[in-house]
Amino acid sequence: MRPHSLSRSASSSVPANTITSSLLSVETRGTGFTDITREVAKFLREAGAREGVVTLFIRHTSASLTIQENADPSVLQDLTTALNRLAPENAGWAHDTEGPDDMPAHIKTMLTSVSLQIPVLNGAMALGTWQGIYVAEHRARPHRREIVLQFIGSAAQ
Amino acid sequence: MRPHSLSRSASSSVPANTITSSLLSVETRGTGFTDITREVAKFLREAGAREGVVTLFIRHTSASLTIQENADPSVLQDLTTALNRLAPENAGWAHDTEGPDDMPAHIKTMLTSVSLQIPVLNGAMALGTWQGIYVAEHRARPHRREIVLQFIGSAAQ
Amino acid sequence: MRPHSLSRSASSSVPANTITSSLLSVETRGTGFTDITREVAKFLREAGAREGVVTLFIRHTSASLTIQENADPSVLQDLTTALNRLAPENAGWAHDTEGPDDMPAHIKTMLTSVSLQIPVLNGAMALGTWQGIYVAEHRARPHRREIVLQFIGSAAQ
Repeated sequence: MRPHSLSRSASSSVPANTITSSLLSVETRGTGFTDITREVAKFLREAGAREGVVTLFIRHTSASLTIQENADPSVLQDLTTALNRLAPENAGWAHDTEGPDDMPAHIKTMLTSVSLQIPVLNGAMALGTWQGIYVAEHRARPHRREIVLQFIGSAAQ
Repeated sequence: MRPHSLSRSASSSVPANTITSSLLSVETRGTGFTDITREVAKFLREAGAREGVVTLFIRHTSASLTIQENADPSVLQDLTTALNRLAPENAGWAHDTEGPDDMPAHIKTMLTSVSLQIPVLNGAMALGTWQGIYVAEHRARPHRREIVLQFIGSAAQ
Repeated sequence: MRPHSLSRSASSSVPANTITSSLLSVETRGTGFTDITREVAKFLREAGAREGVVTLFIRHTSASLTIQENADPSVLQDLTTALNRLAPENAGWAHDTEGPDDMPAHIKTMLTSVSLQIPVLNGAMALGTWQGIYVAEHRARPHRREIVLQFIGSAAQ
């Protein structure tokens, strides 16, 4: 359907003049979600980011990225339940040599995100009030996960 | 499998010289899809966008973004059915204080997109013939949803 | 949960000075995955890409993009099985005029990715060891699929 009501703020423009990249390593504790919002904010502060976009890219195929509610921890618990129902273990997968949790982990990665982009406005990510950025570990055991952080835009010199 | 046949056009390069950002507000009518393609195109026209990329970012965890067929409305109806089957209400969710449609809405958001990027070539989005950009409302009731629009690239001065 | 252990490398910054775009055409063989990692790497080499981000955008609603394990082909076979279970044919879809595989193809596209962003560092994509970039064909028959490739960042002149 066509929108029956919408509005748009005036646009603001600035020159794009910098790219800043960094690698974030996260030690997960096994299946579940790790909040990295503060780490991304810290990266942007140190980069002097003003206006632009930050890209997050996870260098793995059995862990992924998602933006989700950061208020009630039971949401994250239910997201884990939902992913387990959508990609169950022992469901006749051909790829089973790396453990029963491995193929479901690949499927969960496919259904969520490998890369995320978040606009940066006035020096801060334009996240909604309840949005947190999470690394989703889909393997049962703890893993060290690498996420590339990259800001493109205007920065304080 | 390796591609058995592929081809690529010659590359074209231009300088990246501008970032333009704006906030789009959409009043949804409850569960369903709202086409925002024209609004994004209008934003790009006003920004004088020539070549680059437009990022869309929705600032919510119970509504999301998707690019889907814009020809037959029954496709959107079936997408709603599919999401309801993948994330049903009253399925034993721990998070149930905000109504039976709330936790399914978070799951549907996780399975679709919070951010989208669409290349802009010769002043227009490089969408395919049948592609429309949609806000997907996953809550039962109408909501006001905010989407950040951001163009990075070359613009007419 | 908060990360109990994480670290981040020092940031590096360079000027953003170029946008290079190209169109990749892939002939799929019907349902399944086509590895386009080498083609994207070749595009970046020819563009002289040094540091920045490459965006991939597929111009279709019944084929999509994903980054997945490139080592064991049985992973791709299981991903196809998983998508078939999540979006089965003949499941009471309203949109059925284009064949039983059409509506499931739209759903599979919604659950995976239309656009991907991969950071480019020191002239190469920052992919993990086991990550390959795939076009996922969701229709039963072969199709010609178009993917826009776009690099934004610093390039050798």
